[in-house]
Amino acid sequence: MNALGLVSMRLCAGLMGHWSAVNLPFLRVSSGMTLSQIDEEVAKLLQFKAQLGGDEGKHVFVLKTAKGTRDYNPKQMAIREKVFNIIISCFKRHGAETIDTPVFELKETLTGKYGEDSKLIYDLKDQGGELLSLRYDLTVPFARYLAMNKITNIKRYHIAKVYRRDNPAMTRGRYREFYQCDFDIAGQYDAMIPDAECLKIVYEILNELDLGDFHIKVNDRRILDGMFAVCGVPDEKFRTICSTVDKLDKMAWEDVKKEMVNEKGLSEDVANRIGEYVSMQGGQDLAEQLLQDPKLSQNKQACAGLTDMKLLFSYLELFQVTDKVVFDLSLARGLDYYTGVIYEAILSQTIPAPAEQNGADEAAVSVGSVAGGGRYDGLVGMFDPKGRKVPCVGVSIGIERIFSIMEQKAETSSEKVRTTETQVLVASAQKNLLEERLKLTSELWNTGIKAEVLYKKNPKLLSQLQHCEETGIPLVAILGEQELKDGVVKLRNVASREEVDVPRADLVDEIKKRTL
Amino acid sequence: MNALGLVSMRLCAGLMGHWSAVNLPFLRVSSGMTLSQIDEEVAKLLQFKAQLGGDEGKHVFVLKTAKGTRDYNPKQMAIREKVFNIIISCFKRHGAETIDTPVFELKETLTGKYGEDSKLIYDLKDQGGELLSLRYDLTVPFARYLAMNKITNIKRYHIAKVYRRDNPAMTRGRYREFYQCDFDIAGQYDAMIPDAECLKIVYEILNELDLGDFHIKVNDRRILDGMFAVCGVPDEKFRTICSTVDKLDKMAWEDVKKEMVNEKGLSEDVANRIGEYVSMQGGQDLAEQLLQDPKLSQNKQACAGLTDMKLLFSYLELFQVTDKVVFDLSLARGLDYYTGVIYEAILSQTIPAPAEQNGADEAAVSVGSVAGGGRYDGLVGMFDPKGRKVPCVGVSIGIERIFSIMEQKAETSSEKVRTTETQVLVASAQKNLLEERLKLTSELWNTGIKAEVLYKKNPKLLSQLQHCEETGIPLVAILGEQELKDGVVKLRNVASREEVDVPRADLVDEIKKRTL
Repeated sequence: MNALGLVSMRLCAGLMGHWSAVNLPFLRVSSGMTLSQIDEEVAKLLQFKAQLGGDEGKHVFVLKTAKGTRDYNPKQMAIREKVFNIIISCFKRHGAETIDTPVFELKETLTGKYGEDSKLIYDLKDQGGELLSLRYDLTVPFARYLAMNKITNIKRYHIAKVYRRDNPAMTRGRYREFYQCDFDIAGQYDAMIPDAECLKIVYEILNELDLGDFHIKVNDRRILDGMFAVCGVPDEKFRTICSTVDKLDKMAWEDVKKEMVNEKGLSEDVANRIGEYVSMQGGQDLAEQLLQDPKLSQNKQACAGLTDMKLLFSYLELFQVTDKVVFDLSLARGLDYYTGVIYEAILSQTIPAPAEQNGADEAAVSVGSVAGGGRYDGLVGMFDPKGRKVPCVGVSIGIERIFSIMEQKAETSSEKVRTTETQVLVASAQKNLLEERLKLTSELWNTGIKAEVLYKKNPKLLSQLQHCEETGIPLVAILGEQELKDGVVKLRNVASREEVDVPRADLVDEIKKRTL
Repeated sequence: MNALGLVSMRLCAGLMGHWSAVNLPFLRVSSGMTLSQIDEEVAKLLQFKAQLGGDEGKHVFVLKTAKGTRDYNPKQMAIREKVFNIIISCFKRHGAETIDTPVFELKETLTGKYGEDSKLIYDLKDQGGELLSLRYDLTVPFARYLAMNKITNIKRYHIAKVYRRDNPAMTRGRYREFYQCDFDIAGQYDAMIPDAECLKIVYEILNELDLGDFHIKVNDRRILDGMFAVCGVPDEKFRTICSTVDKLDKMAWEDVKKEMVNEKGLSEDVANRIGEYVSMQGGQDLAEQLLQDPKLSQNKQACAGLTDMKLLFSYLELFQVTDKVVFDLSLARGLDYYTGVIYEAILSQTIPAPAEQNGADEAAVSVGSVAGGGRYDGLVGMFDPKGRKVPCVGVSIGIERIFSIMEQKAETSSEKVRTTETQVLVASAQKNLLEERLKLTSELWNTGIKAEVLYKKNPKLLSQLQHCEETGIPLVAILGEQELKDGVVKLRNVASREEVDVPRADLVDEIKKRTL
């Protein structure tokens, strides 16, 4: 009996008998399980136990987030906000608008867009409505949006979470729920101008994020296809050989070749010919050289790709970014929908990560890769009832990996990450001043000052000062009987401990001046 | 055969036979269907047809978003950004941090938290991992987060989408996927101080959003429970009678009474006694008056609630917000987890909405309600293995309804909503200046100027100026042979059409000066 048969049997037994038996976890245990699979089964078992408990006993809750997901605590959110601000500023500097789409799409919208990765799509349960799936990326919803609204040109960014039932490698910033930051240009334009702007954007963002040295690999699907053709790969194997080539960034050529020959059925000769090409790296010069290549120059696709590559480099020269861009014939990228230029940005300095189980899916994301994209001229047409095409080119910033790096940087840095922006704490040194504290705090809020007050009737001055130390509030406005009588507030600088009496009427200006 | 049996049969037939037959849509058609149910079935039928088409024919796509969801176009996003900025500024002014949680939780985490509304939870399909559901609100994930991380005090906001399989009423801003903007204060503090701050926040936000007049109804679950007790409602009916009272904002008392007597089994007498109380509205004075009420004053719960209500109003007085706050004994709120103060903000000026089908679920959200919340001291304890409680109070801003109102305002306003922030378009009046345009644009980007350039080799000056008119770009930097020779750029004000030659070295400063 195959796996599907087993599942069917279990499901049917469950449906015909007790509904709660559907997920009897013990049916899942097998000797080939990984540690994380066992964790999952334990979680299910505990959930099941809690369900059996019903309303009679105390529920045994599994206190965790779903596998491959995480909460962001306030410190992580502060870092995330900083990173988003840099990226959004860049997108806005380039004149982009933004859109948003729902987190789930009709299942059919996602079908047939992701090749082998389709198995990683999260489906929603059929609860008697439409068949829905969580979005797998932002590109397919974007194409659906363009077709649905008959939009033929737009420059937009979209920052949102996407979902993949992948094997998470969370220490390296790989999750099942993760952010994508996409910038795309749709429209019929002159060759390579929007493509060059996408690369300029990657360059600007990686520079501003200050993640150390990086380089951007560029290639073109037409060059790859032309290369496969002249090497003797049969047409129907282009995409699958492309996937194998894509593994060159983390597998040695010998292993990639083995896969081509043993698994994908290429002859040794054909594989060797591919091997010669994919070892080539260069710039505009390499494009020119390959245009003279006796074999490639005979292939129409390859020539179109190489001519565009030359043009692209000439624009990148004007944008002053060629120092980081490499024309690399081994770059293939996994997704099916690319039709022209493709690119991927890689950090030079990779942070060592602990060894992971489940190496099988590692190929999906390159370890040092922090941005990637390319041209996809056919995708919108797949959604248009009349097949009308809207050429698109775009880039996706791999923000989760960037978060991980920034978090690690923050942890080793001496500077404390503030999680609030509070300018002043309204405090008192004596008892029975709650009402006066609340009144002053309210006055400050009304003028736009960011202010806090402890929610205690009679807090100790020490605990009020400690709250400032812990959260980085720079100022304390201290009220006492004497200050109230004199119409002043004692303003204390938390760092220097210096105190000065400020007339109540001047307090707002004084706080603003000191917390610019 | 009951409904579950039918579902089982269909599922099993599908599993045993052809997988694709699982969702044969024609099984769903029945005479009692609403229009929107028929739409759904049509969508399923077309999806099914597309699936049958396989790879052989052209797919027939259903070009739509899932029922009850929508895309945000750039104009809507510009409005959304504006609204979020006002709300986030307010939260930050009050010293809040922010967190984020995953869009799905273990199903068990959500179980038993929402009473009758649990049927509206979206479940994910069991694809061989944990049992997951989409979050229904941000409060339960917040409580799970506190318990899981053993956090006993925090002031946090969380802005994110939540999911409810409700009957959408999209013209009135009711969706199946919608934003919640939550602000909550967790911690053991002196009575009513954090509660008063929540109300102050609602007041500030509604004022700043400029949505017209509003009022905030306040009540307390303990007062309601005490009132039910002294009126003679049996203990086990408190929550269900609470749900019925909650309908008073859109049903007449006579109908609410009918539900209490005919559906919930109260005697006419008991219902009449409830009727007397729930017609009462007032302020601090009403709380004082009810503390003298011969029946209520005998109830411990009611007294505790009324004493706190008095205290709350004294703090609201200090915060200068009592002009908008009403102590209203008819306010009940639907959710099970409230334990103390509850509140709801209502816009006075409601925008007329078209009649909707499916009135059944309307009770869930009040038409003019734009914010609501309350105290929930028991929720975190439900997650803690030792049942340790963390008292919480919070407020949720009903942002979708606010978006709808702001969108309608923008449409009737003469001012055009800009969807980009571009300061200048780099243009040319002559041919063959693409490279010069790209070079200048790049220079501007590098200095932080928001600049665009058309992706055409030789665009007409007119179409470049038109692009500015359409998107609201205020300046054009025009390059020509003469300007290049003279080392200047012609800077054109789009609105006034005035042009001036600016030396290239001064261009950045000049643009900054003009687009402050």
